Amino acid sequence: MSEEEKLVSRANEDFYRAFESLDIKRMESVWAHDEAIECGHPGWLILRGRKAVMESWRSIFENTAEIHFLLSEVTVHIQDNVAWVTLYENLSSAVGEQNVSAMVLTTNIFKKIDEGWRMIHHHGSSVAQPPSEDSGPTVH
Amino acid sequence: MSEEEKLVSRANEDFYRAFESLDIKRMESVWAHDEAIECGHPGWLILRGRKAVMESWRSIFENTAEIHFLLSEVTVHIQDNVAWVTLYENLSSAVGEQNVSAMVLTTNIFKKIDEGWRMIHHHGSSVAQPPSEDSGPTVH
Repeated sequence: MSEEEKLVSRANEDFYRAFESLDIKRMESVWAHDEAIECGHPGWLILRGRKAVMESWRSIFENTAEIHFLLSEVTVHIQDNVAWVTLYENLSSAVGEQNVSAMVLTTNIFKKIDEGWRMIHHHGSSVAQPPSEDSGPTVH
Repeated sequence: MSEEEKLVSRANEDFYRAFESLDIKRMESVWAHDEAIECGHPGWLILRGRKAVMESWRSIFENTAEIHFLLSEVTVHIQDNVAWVTLYENLSSAVGEQNVSAMVLTTNIFKKIDEGWRMIHHHGSSVAQPPSEDSGPTVH
């Protein structure tokens, strides 16, 4: 893994640590200050622009008691100042009285700015079946 | 829309026309000749590399009698030699004896090479509810 790939990988990890922290300030700092940001939570319509995206995180954080992610099959691609990361989010979460487990296929796109790599796009979608033995997840 | 955005938009349209044609040669020509290509069909696990991705299209084409797409809320982003397009696929399809309608949120990523913009990533996921009146789709 190149130095640049490590930085993208770290930015990607920062997103999930911010999500687990349920701290909106931390989540805000992961994303680019850019009106072009977009976010598609699993099953939701796409949200466009910082206001709509951050409101969605605030709402999710308010309704989540606890959430943990185990990331698998994380793959980083970099081209110029854009990076996209694909992975499975193996998540366990407490929403109200309910415990939820899910496997979510995710595309995260990051943009390189002076301060480092910032998220500009997040698209997560539920996966119908778990991976087969052959394509077993590699935990990163 | 800039000239470059028009070219990306056309590459994106080409992908859906190739899909509708159910012609594997046409679909092959839309994608980059790059082992980094990735494809996440709605509900499927992610497919990585040209062989796996093209096999999936062959299998989908063999099992589809007819498919049509109406694209809505198409948004194009370009940064250096990478472009990503988000949209809803409003699709109607005939699979065997069944007619299927669905709304799929999609992230398509394209890479600019000498020959033009080629698809490098496709991630589609079913959306639970139709858009509200306020965010009604704009047909492009």
